Parts: sequence; structure tokens; C-alpha cells
Amino acid sequence: MRQYMQHAIQLAKCADGQTGVNPLVGAVVVKDDRVVGFGAHLKAGEPHAEVHAIRMAGASAFGSTVYVTLEPCSHHGKTPPCADLLIESGVRRVVIAMEDPNPLVAGRGIARLKAAGIEVEVGLLENEARALNPAFLRSLETKRPYVILKTATSLDGKVALDSGDSKWVTGTEARLDVHALRANVDAVLTGIGTVIADDPALTARLERPTEQPLRVVLDRELNVPHASQLVRTANELPVLVYTTSDDVSRREALESRGVELADYTTLERVLEELYARGIGRLLVEAGPTLVTSLLDGGYIDEWVMYQSPRVFGGKAGFYRSNHDGPLEAIEQFDVRSVETIGNDIKLVMRKGEPDVHRNR
Amino acid sequence: MRQYMQHAIQLAKCADGQTGVNPLVGAVVVKDDRVVGFGAHLKAGEPHAEVHAIRMAGASAFGSTVYVTLEPCSHHGKTPPCADLLIESGVRRVVIAMEDPNPLVAGRGIARLKAAGIEVEVGLLENEARALNPAFLRSLETKRPYVILKTATSLDGKVALDSGDSKWVTGTEARLDVHALRANVDAVLTGIGTVIADDPALTARLERPTEQPLRVVLDRELNVPHASQLVRTANELPVLVYTTSDDVSRREALESRGVELADYTTLERVLEELYARGIGRLLVEAGPTLVTSLLDGGYIDEWVMYQSPRVFGGKAGFYRSNHDGPLEAIEQFDVRSVETIGNDIKLVMRKGEPDVHRNR
Repeated sequence: MRQYMQHAIQLAKCADGQTGVNPLVGAVVVKDDRVVGFGAHLKAGEPHAEVHAIRMAGASAFGSTVYVTLEPCSHHGKTPPCADLLIESGVRRVVIAMEDPNPLVAGRGIARLKAAGIEVEVGLLENEARALNPAFLRSLETKRPYVILKTATSLDGKVALDSGDSKWVTGTEARLDVHALRANVDAVLTGIGTVIADDPALTARLERPTEQPLRVVLDRELNVPHASQLVRTANELPVLVYTTSDDVSRREALESRGVELADYTTLERVLEELYARGIGRLLVEAGPTLVTSLLDGGYIDEWVMYQSPRVFGGKAGFYRSNHDGPLEAIEQFDVRSVETIGNDIKLVMRKGEPDVHRNR
Repeated sequence: MRQYMQHAIQLAKCADGQTGVNPLVGAVVVKDDRVVGFGAHLKAGEPHAEVHAIRMAGASAFGSTVYVTLEPCSHHGKTPPCADLLIESGVRRVVIAMEDPNPLVAGRGIARLKAAGIEVEVGLLENEARALNPAFLRSLETKRPYVILKTATSLDGKVALDSGDSKWVTGTEARLDVHALRANVDAVLTGIGTVIADDPALTARLERPTEQPLRVVLDRELNVPHASQLVRTANELPVLVYTTSDDVSRREALESRGVELADYTTLERVLEELYARGIGRLLVEAGPTLVTSLLDGGYIDEWVMYQSPRVFGGKAGFYRSNHDGPLEAIEQFDVRSVETIGNDIKLVMRKGEPDVHRNR
């Protein structure tokens, strides 16, 4: 029944931005045409969607049909295998929107259910279920976070005037929207140039309470000012600085202020390490140097571009590279949405959709 | 009755792009709650909306109510005054959406009707009626055409690669859309740089038959190639070249090929002359030099910006100036619409709404 799966997909969405490297998943338990339980995965390390749903159903789970947006897991991770729970609860039938492409699962959950005599159907609203988790699906391929680039420019692609004036490129509505972006990621990445020029806090300042992203700075020489907002708040909200500096006094001074240091080698390694730390979604708010490296490296999965409807002129473009061409070889993003926000323009673009191989 | 005025506004729109410096106007004649005639102004020099509507109504015009989107004219222009026609036809009441800000009318039409004992009401759906004619309203102020800038760029504001490769910045859908823009203006303006680099025809190539815009080139030195598409088609479709050159042989060679020459003095003079020639809507498709001059001069009334969702890098920006700042002093356009077209983005922006003083 499509409506139950649609409901499970809606449930999954309620945890958008709070599951880290884990996917959004929703589940609905149905018995005698009546919903007897539902759940969603809310946070990495906490129960999976099926667990919440089966708990809510209680004894009614026996003989029920479970609708779940992602294949139930078959492995012991931070929680026990959901497939086993469904079997033990006496579930009669499981309808799954999509197989879990995670190599740790990849059809083994389905096989386990079937081996226990449970009727299994796969593929109901699969496209909708896949669309829940572009970050998860892509990261499984790349072992890197889903990287979201934010830029705020004039129509001629400038981030500031040549005078250095860059406050503010966009209006208040667009700037408020950036706080919502930050609230929806696990970490925010910037470069030392931006820290020195703008002294950003990189926190999500919203009226509602929100978890704060890890704040990550690339700073080879360890020039981050102790008076910066980042360092001053490092004891309350984590700051991670990637550096190549072995200046002991600088390192100790920052560490004593609560800043965590890590070794910078390459941009790719930084991304892989962040993913290994559980950073599933990474927002980049940086200057032209880092933005250009990330664009040229193909690391940008999603791009939220705010444009102020005016021209600045000058030299402060957000992109400093130079494509040789030919023109038709230059990769395009897919435009997902265009809208006005205040008097500014907001474009959301994505790299081509993740094409994760489905193991059957 | 709003519905009759709404109908008149719809009628007016059917002539969008074909009235030159004249406004879009629609009229509906109503008698005994029945529409007995309607009309629209279709082309400069041809009858006004009221004339068509009264003709259609015939004898029923006597004792009728006329709904018209713009104050009936009171002066002898290319056609006799419409106010007189309404009086002679025995119209009982005239409902007018907005006064005509044209100083030749400016309330005199209304006064004339009232003096003849006709009941007059002004202001029904005025905002909708004003929105019909942004070009007309602005040009009355400026004595220049309503200037529409078209640009096609990458997200970093580049119109080409440094290699010179500029075919094509946008996809086929956006390029087709440009032909519709051309079909909707009286003239297209470009610079000699674009003629030499791209050899554009600047015609509106649509499946439906369409009037072609006057093609205007700024070419001080008279370097326009005889082999260019513009010159080769000049005998069929007018080409007007503004120049400072007094090279007689060059001038004669071009004139013998059907090109009309005019003296270039300043950009502002060119625009004023085009308006005086009856060019109400002017599309600019030009390179960075001319685009920068027009933007910096404040001559752009509307801006249709196509963006390809990718970055080019390099130096070929569409805007070559450099704002001193401060940032908040830089004029913003109003965003009227944002949409995707093919895989590209289309922004339509306007200068602040015309604020034509209403003479009462």
C-alpha cells in the first residue's frame, strides 16, 4: 500500500540533518489495515526506525506488515540487527522501498528475512526513498562527507568590492537562511583567509534550539587569531584546525584554549578523515582559494548559491581558476531549485544524482 | 465591474511587443450588462483600442459604458482624439483604469469627457493596467527606449573562456528563448566587437511569423565587415550603424549595401534618437564594453540573465567596471522572476518600478 510507504518516507524526513553519516529511514507497522506503530531513525547510535516502530506496536507486531524505506540491517553495528528484531517479533510481511547499498547490508537483511519465512517485497516508492538520502548514497561511494558549498555573490560573481567591503553581499533573509543550512550539517569548513578577513562564528543562530556543527578550519601555518570568535568559543563548541605547523608554542597555546589540532596533508584526506569522524554533511563557507580547490577537485555535491541582483565589478571573484575548454566539456550542475529570498536569488544545484550500484 | 476591465487588460496584452513606443491598451463596450464591442491598440499609427471597440459596438455604443485601460486621448496624433469619438457615439459612462501620463493627454481626455456630460470613473484595476506598460511609462520619463539587457554567462559571470570559446554558453532552450525576446522588441543593439567576434544575425528566428527588429550597431571606426550576416542581409532587414567615421569610401560601400549610417556622439544620444525613431523597446545583446557602459550609465530598465550552472574561470567577465562602494550604495535590480530553462537559469530583473507623476 503506497500510502503506508508514503507515510514512512514522511517520518524519515523529520530527522533531516540530525543523523550524521546515517541515512534517514522511516518505518510503519500495519495490522488489519490499521497503523499500529511507526518510527524513524533520529540520530546515529540511537535505535533504527524499525526498533521504534516495533516497540510502539508491542504485541500487535505479531502477524503485521512492516513498511520501511530502507532495507533492515543484518549486522551488529552500534545497535543489533533490525532483521532479527522483525523475525523475533513475528512480523508476517516486510515491504522495503530500497535495498541498503551499504556493503555491510546489501541484500543480506532481505535474505535473512526471507530465510525466516517472512514475505518480502522490494521497490515500492524506491525513487522517493532514494531521494531521501542523496548524501548517504554518495558518501557510500566516495567515503567523504556530502559537501555543500555556500556562496554569496553579486551577479558578476564577486564576493566583495576591491576595497575589501563584503558586508553584506546579500540581505537579511538570505543570511538567516545560511543559519538554517548550518543547523542542517554536521560540520562547517572554512579557510584561514576567511577567519582573518571576516572572523565568522560559523554557528547556527536560529530561534529554535539546534545542534551546532563542528567548526573546521584549514590553517597550514597556524595563524588563527586567539582573539577570533572561533578560538574564543572553542571550549564550548568544538573547533578543529587542520595544520602543517610544528610550532610547539603555537600548538600548545591553541590546544590550551580548547582547539583540536589535526595534521593537514591533502584536501581529500581532510574530507576522508571528517567522514571517518562521523561527519556526513559538510558545509563549506570559504574564500576563493578553498572554493576553487573544491570545485576543481570535483568535491562539491551540492551548491547553494545566493546572488544579490547587482554588479560589483573588480577582482574579487569567488572562482580563481581558468578552464581550458572546450566549453562543452565543462561540467554542469543540475539545478534543483531557483527562488527569490528577500530581494536576493537562491539557487540550489547538485552534482549528477548518485548512482550507487545496487547489489542484488 | 472588474470583470470588464480585466477583459480589457487581457485584450491589451495580445499586442505585447508590437506597439513600438505606444502603450498596450484594451477597451470593452458594455450595454445592458452585455459586451457589445471590444478592441485593443495593435500597432502605432493604427486605430486606438476605443476606435476598434466602438466600431464593433456600432449603434449599441449609444448609452453604453466603455471600460478602457488608459485614459482616452484628447489630441490629434496619427489618429483623431478618442475622447471625441466616445462623445460623438453617445457613450454614457467611461471607466478608466489609469490616467495617461503622457503630457499631451494627462487628464485632458477625462476633462473633455466630463465636459460633455459623460460619467467618468478612474482607477479600476489601476495597478494591473500600469503593469501592462512598464516600458511606455518609463520612456515617457526618460525619452529613451525601454532598454532590455540580455546576458548569458556562467555562474562566475563569464561570457567565454579565455581561449575565446563562447559557443555555447547556454543550452538550446535558452537560445530559443532569446529569439522570442528579439521578436518582442523594436530594435536590437550591439557593438562592433560582438559583430566581429560572433557574426550574429540578430533576427528573431521563430516558427511563427514575426516582425524583425531593427538591427543597430555601434561602430565608431566603421569596421563592420561586408561579409558579416548583418551587412549581407541589410537590403532585406534594416541595419543602422552609428559611427564617427568620415571615411567616404567606407561609408559609401556600406550604404550601397543597404546599411543606414548615423552619427555617433554619446550613448545617451543614440538612445534618444532611437526613441525618436519610434523604438519603444530595445534589446541589448553586446559584449562587456557596451554592457558595462549601459549598466554604469543606469540605462538598463530590464535585465534577462541566462546562467549556465557551471564555472568558466578566466578573465572574460560580462562586467568590466569596478564599484568603489560602499557596498550598500550599489543599486539593486528587482527580481521579477527566476526559473529554469532547459538546464540553465533564467532571471528577469527590473530597475525600480517607474514612478510617473500623475497629473490630476
